[in-house]
Amino acid sequence: MDVVYLDNNATTKPAAEVVAAMLPYLTEFYGNPSSVHRFGQRARQALDEARGQVSTLVGCSESELMFGGGGTELINTAIRGILTARSPRKKIVTSSVEHSATRERCQQLGREGFEVVVIDVDRDGVLDLDRLRSVVDDGVALVSIMWANNETGVIFPVEQIVEICKAHRVPFHCDAVQAVAKIPLNFNEAGVDLATIAAHKFHGPKGVAALYIRRGVRMRALLIGGPQERGRRGGTENVPGIVGMGKAAELAMSGLQQMPRVAAMRDRLEREILTRISDTAVNGRTDQRIPNTTNIGFSRLEAEAILL
Amino acid sequence: MDVVYLDNNATTKPAAEVVAAMLPYLTEFYGNPSSVHRFGQRARQALDEARGQVSTLVGCSESELMFGGGGTELINTAIRGILTARSPRKKIVTSSVEHSATRERCQQLGREGFEVVVIDVDRDGVLDLDRLRSVVDDGVALVSIMWANNETGVIFPVEQIVEICKAHRVPFHCDAVQAVAKIPLNFNEAGVDLATIAAHKFHGPKGVAALYIRRGVRMRALLIGGPQERGRRGGTENVPGIVGMGKAAELAMSGLQQMPRVAAMRDRLEREILTRISDTAVNGRTDQRIPNTTNIGFSRLEAEAILL
Repeated sequence: MDVVYLDNNATTKPAAEVVAAMLPYLTEFYGNPSSVHRFGQRARQALDEARGQVSTLVGCSESELMFGGGGTELINTAIRGILTARSPRKKIVTSSVEHSATRERCQQLGREGFEVVVIDVDRDGVLDLDRLRSVVDDGVALVSIMWANNETGVIFPVEQIVEICKAHRVPFHCDAVQAVAKIPLNFNEAGVDLATIAAHKFHGPKGVAALYIRRGVRMRALLIGGPQERGRRGGTENVPGIVGMGKAAELAMSGLQQMPRVAAMRDRLEREILTRISDTAVNGRTDQRIPNTTNIGFSRLEAEAILL
Repeated sequence: MDVVYLDNNATTKPAAEVVAAMLPYLTEFYGNPSSVHRFGQRARQALDEARGQVSTLVGCSESELMFGGGGTELINTAIRGILTARSPRKKIVTSSVEHSATRERCQQLGREGFEVVVIDVDRDGVLDLDRLRSVVDDGVALVSIMWANNETGVIFPVEQIVEICKAHRVPFHCDAVQAVAKIPLNFNEAGVDLATIAAHKFHGPKGVAALYIRRGVRMRALLIGGPQERGRRGGTENVPGIVGMGKAAELAMSGLQQMPRVAAMRDRLEREILTRISDTAVNGRTDQRIPNTTNIGFSRLEAEAILL
């Protein structure tokens, strides 16, 4: 049976090249990267290569990237890690449309005594920048706002958010999980302080992700125990997973060239649905969206019924 | 070249059956278990099956097991999670020979205001039970002691530790990472409250582990964001990794039958080394060891030189 899989914002199919790249590290080269013998050192080299591949995709140096076990882990690491290190400031600013990792972590910090300010989006899914500008001041410990939204695909104004944060020396964590490999990203040039990406959203494996930590940004580890990842994340590295993420990042460099075609297909799908089915409308501002995402409202129909 | 790999306490080679079990979930069945369509539900079923396999190996019900991204993550989860939930008690008891995940996490809690009591082992690597008995009282928030030591292989007196903890209603977390699949374990019968195992130590993949949480034990999540693992660990599940861990657990059930043979080979290796090389001695009590581990001291030789 032919299947058209349309749930790539939930997870993607690992590319054949990704699985092929991982396999030797599940079979032949199974060493622990912390072991000094050649089994270990071969695994260590593989980590280094993957770090290079991912850093090329997101525009940073290799030493600014740490690997972890998933986007949720690293969003938790980023938000908690930066706060612990900057204790005098007690306000956190985030948006109303974040992934649950950001939203629930911030809510938890709210229960622990932080003031959490939630910036709304308008009916087109666009962030209220004026409100952001008015709440970010020298008392803010962290701004955590996504790069692109997973439901509407709307791209957030990262450049302006950076500007606002810089004016008050506020660290800015950007959840780039849905943006990476859909639009070109350069963390160094963008000026974000922290940014998270997850491999399984761009044809890499589940269970592996990377956190960008700008050089000079100080933070504490969430997972303690061992010198791995420069002491930022203890524990034996998931070598096959990291190798798969590296390969997926390499593939994404050429995949980005295909994105105009993806956008054209998405636009055609939307046009046909809007034309042929009455009482339908696209949710979210259409001129600033990642190319793979559509969000269509069907009046008087239940979402789950349509999905099934 | 024929190779004899002797670093299985650092990491093991994934079994061929494990890799074969994982592959379909890297290729064909790549759905997100949280998706309600059939791609997702197939992945969900795989998680359930793996949970059954692991719970059979360690003697507990499926609902008492949560999966995570590695032993270090779950040791951090266990120790922090239980402390947050029992705040009036401010003392932690651990041993002097724990894995760095336990040791460094406890040290960090020491800096955060907890009193950390470290129980020594004697020159045979045996835990000082009398000292443990004397320090565990109603002010202790958590005891975290390993089941078997990774360096000497010495098995710790879990039964007695449980007794001591129960007398003062102290939660006991047991790092069973090196014990599982080497000796039969039954967490329910043993009476531990929390216990951690990691797949890559018993021929499963890296980057996946499981935490046993006895029914009724309350703890907070470390990785927040999403309803996965009954709200105990947010984030898209590493389906291929968890499937691999399940298969490794199934294989370990029969692997346990081979352990007398492993012990006999280990004993022969030790005998030959002690006989043929002067100034050598076994470290650690030899009659209570996991069967795969030896620790031999070579006087006047550097460890790293021997290793290389």
